[in-house]
Amino acid sequence: MDKKEYIVRQLRRTYNKKYEAYVVHRIIHLLNDLDIKFVTQQYVVRPDGGIALTDLFFPQINLHIEVDEGHHKANIDADKLREFDIINTTGHDILRVDVTTSIEQINQRINEVLEEIHKKIDRLKNNSEFKPWSIDSEFNSDTYIKIGYIDIHDNVAFKTIKDACNCFGHNYIGYQKAGASHPDSTIMLWFPKLFPNGEWDNQISDDEKTITEKSLNTKKVKKHIIGIINRENNAKHKRIVFAKVKGNLGFVLYRFRGLYQLDFNKSGSNGLVWRRVATKVKTFPKPKNN
Amino acid sequence: MDKKEYIVRQLRRTYNKKYEAYVVHRIIHLLNDLDIKFVTQQYVVRPDGGIALTDLFFPQINLHIEVDEGHHKANIDADKLREFDIINTTGHDILRVDVTTSIEQINQRINEVLEEIHKKIDRLKNNSEFKPWSIDSEFNSDTYIKIGYIDIHDNVAFKTIKDACNCFGHNYIGYQKAGASHPDSTIMLWFPKLFPNGEWDNQISDDEKTITEKSLNTKKVKKHIIGIINRENNAKHKRIVFAKVKGNLGFVLYRFRGLYQLDFNKSGSNGLVWRRVATKVKTFPKPKNN
Repeated sequence: MDKKEYIVRQLRRTYNKKYEAYVVHRIIHLLNDLDIKFVTQQYVVRPDGGIALTDLFFPQINLHIEVDEGHHKANIDADKLREFDIINTTGHDILRVDVTTSIEQINQRINEVLEEIHKKIDRLKNNSEFKPWSIDSEFNSDTYIKIGYIDIHDNVAFKTIKDACNCFGHNYIGYQKAGASHPDSTIMLWFPKLFPNGEWDNQISDDEKTITEKSLNTKKVKKHIIGIINRENNAKHKRIVFAKVKGNLGFVLYRFRGLYQLDFNKSGSNGLVWRRVATKVKTFPKPKNN
Repeated sequence: MDKKEYIVRQLRRTYNKKYEAYVVHRIIHLLNDLDIKFVTQQYVVRPDGGIALTDLFFPQINLHIEVDEGHHKANIDADKLREFDIINTTGHDILRVDVTTSIEQINQRINEVLEEIHKKIDRLKNNSEFKPWSIDSEFNSDTYIKIGYIDIHDNVAFKTIKDACNCFGHNYIGYQKAGASHPDSTIMLWFPKLFPNGEWDNQISDDEKTITEKSLNTKKVKKHIIGIINRENNAKHKRIVFAKVKGNLGFVLYRFRGLYQLDFNKSGSNGLVWRRVATKVKTFPKPKNN
C-alpha cells in the first residue's frame, strides 16, 4: 500500500459522519504535507481510563483532533475492542472542533488547529527530531536498527513478526511463532494477543503497565507457569512485547508496548503477571552473513 | 438549509468512491471560498447527447470536474433519470483529474484545476459579472426582479412554484397549479414534469430545444390540444417553462428551461410540440399593495 492508497482509505473512513468528514478532510487538505502521517478514527485509552475514538490522530506529534457534534458520544464496549489497535494517550494532546457553530467559525477553528499542528511540527524540526512520514521505512526493521532504539512515543508497529524480530539480531525471511530470542538471554520477544483467544485469556491494563498471562486450561497453565517461574539465571524473565492487533485499515499489526518483567510476587496459579519496566528498548544489527 | 448544511451534505455525497471523495474535498477546501457554489454528482446532458454524471459542478462559471478513475464509466439508463435535475452542458467546460497517477501528480493536477477556477472567477469579477453565492437570495424571486431577467446560463431554479410566479408580476403566498398567468397574455408560466407521470407523457429533448406535451388519455388529450391550438390572439401560445425536478439533495426544484413557443405544424393529435425561442426572459416587479 502506497501513501496515496493509505490517505484515501484513511479519509474514506469518515464517510458515515458528514461533519467529521468535513473537518478531517479540511485539516488534511489544508495541512497539505505528505511528510505528516495521520490516522482517522483511532481507538485510544484515555489517561483516566476507558476506551474512546478520536477522529484524527497525528502520531508524529501525538496530537488528536476530536470533532464535537454537541451530543454525548456513546460509550464503547471495551471488551469487544481488545483485538483492535488501541493507543494509550498519556502525554498526548487533544484539540476539539465544535461543529455546532457556523461554517465560518468551524473554518476559523480549523485554522487554529492547523497553527497548533505547525507549531508542534516546527518544534520537532528545530530540534532535528522530526521524522518525515515514510510508508516504506516506518514498518522496516532497518529504520529502527539505524536509529538504535524503539520508543513507544514513536508509535511503532510492524506488519509481521519477522520485521520485529529483525530489530533484535535476527535476519528472518519468515517467522510465525509467538516468541523469539533476544541477544540478552534474560529477554524474550513476545507477540501475544492481549485479549481472550482460544484457551488463552491474556489482558493488558488500560495504562499498559501490567500484562496478565492466563490460560483457561488449568492443567496446562500450571505447568507453563511453574516452568517459567523456575527458569534459572532469570532466563526470559523479561519480555519485549509487540501485541498482535487489528489496524484500522483491517491489516494485522504488531504494536510495540514496551519491555515487561515477571512479577514473581503476583504470579502464581492464576497466571503470570508482567510489569512494564521500560518504554524504550535498544535495537541490534542483523547478523552478518558468513 | 444554510451554507454549512448544504456544503457538508454535498461533500458527503462523494462517500462511495474514495478517490472522488479525495479530489472533490481537496478542491473545495483548497478553493476555500464560501462565495463559490458547488454541486457534487450533477446529472448532465452532454453536448453530443446522452446523460452522464459530473463529479463536481461550479454553476457560477459553468465548469465541471470529472474524476477519471481509469475505467470506462457505466452508461446511465436515461429513462430512469428524467425526474432528476439534469443540466445541459452546452458551452460548459469540463476538466478531468486522472487519479491513476501518483498522489503528488494528483495534487499537482488539482492545483492546475484550482488555477483554472480562479481564472474564471477573476474574469467574472473583472467584468463585474460575479454573483457571490448566497443561499438566501439564489431561490428568492426578489433577486431576479432586481436584476431584471432570468437567464439559463445562471442555472436558475426555485424551490416552489410561487417563487417562480412572483418573478412575473405575482405576489403569491402559496400556489400549487401547473400553470400561471404572465403580464403578456400570449405567455403562460408552465411547471411541468417532463417525464412520464400518470396520464401525461411529456418529454424534453436532450438539447432542451423541444418539449413534447402528450397525454395517454386519447379523448382528453384531443380536446386539450384542440383547445390550445384554437385559442384566439395567440393567447398562451408561448410558455416560460420551469420543469419540476428532484434536486440532488432530495428536494424538489423548478428548473428554468427557457421560453417556448407552440409549433403549429408539428402539433396535432399526437400532442403539442413546443420550441424554445429564448433562454433569457424579462422579470416583472411584484404588484403594489392597494
